Amino acid sequence: MLCVKIISVGTLKEPYLRDAAAEYSKRLSSYCRLNMVQLKEVKLPDSPSQKEIAAALDDEAKMILSELSPRAYKIAMCVEGKQLSSETLAKKLDSISAEHSEICLVIGSSHGLSDKVKSACDMRLSVSELTFPHQLLRIMLLEAIYRAFNINAGTKYHK
Amino acid sequence: MLCVKIISVGTLKEPYLRDAAAEYSKRLSSYCRLNMVQLKEVKLPDSPSQKEIAAALDDEAKMILSELSPRAYKIAMCVEGKQLSSETLAKKLDSISAEHSEICLVIGSSHGLSDKVKSACDMRLSVSELTFPHQLLRIMLLEAIYRAFNINAGTKYHK
Repeated sequence: MLCVKIISVGTLKEPYLRDAAAEYSKRLSSYCRLNMVQLKEVKLPDSPSQKEIAAALDDEAKMILSELSPRAYKIAMCVEGKQLSSETLAKKLDSISAEHSEICLVIGSSHGLSDKVKSACDMRLSVSELTFPHQLLRIMLLEAIYRAFNINAGTKYHK
Repeated sequence: MLCVKIISVGTLKEPYLRDAAAEYSKRLSSYCRLNMVQLKEVKLPDSPSQKEIAAALDDEAKMILSELSPRAYKIAMCVEGKQLSSETLAKKLDSISAEHSEICLVIGSSHGLSDKVKSACDMRLSVSELTFPHQLLRIMLLEAIYRAFNINAGTKYHK
């Protein structure tokens, strides 16, 4: 069974987001071993300078890089990444499963991801040209993965 | 104050989606008069034929068209629509506000939207190449609109 590790920065603050994540975790347990790792977001002042943001991203990068399993297929979520249709994502997931026992998906903090993390990944994936809060993005990603597994399993979830 | 009418088909079944919608409704009340209209999804058998789906979409179209205010700027949400960045959506919202007192956004059922609805709209908007459940899409759309208002107001919500 494929191990899906979702590495994200910051906690899910809204109860409805925590409930949504719990629901998708339950649903995904039929398809993969899901491992959701929440790293601590580096605290920044109210109006941080570019330098302060860069330093925070750098600290977050260190934590993220230590969580990336060397043998896993690694995907960085970023707005400039490649967008895929649900069918193409399903095929991608299928081909990754053939060669890897683990897939790591990384979602940055509200300031995004350091280039160090992006370079360490095999692929940059985007879900939208719109910016979404990183916390909601986590739910959207869980949904996208759940749908991909369903497409590959031939269930009726994806019409 | 701009009236934002979100016309969608089907109810929000998951409690976490209802909570999310309530939270965004509260937040949006500072920026617009939000009117969320939920139409009844036409019931279909477990494995509907293309003809049955078309008939259901047709029935849903009648209900949707009767909710579309003639003077409003009308947007159909569909995967083949145009994707915008959050900044471009904010500009679009601003220019719509200058000419219209109301904007209608239409989200179809799990089988999508009839061409009749798409043709009756001024614009087709997509949030992603990925397919998302229409219920989650409602939350994503509320977030996108909330972010657009924040960008136009110059708050710190959008970094």
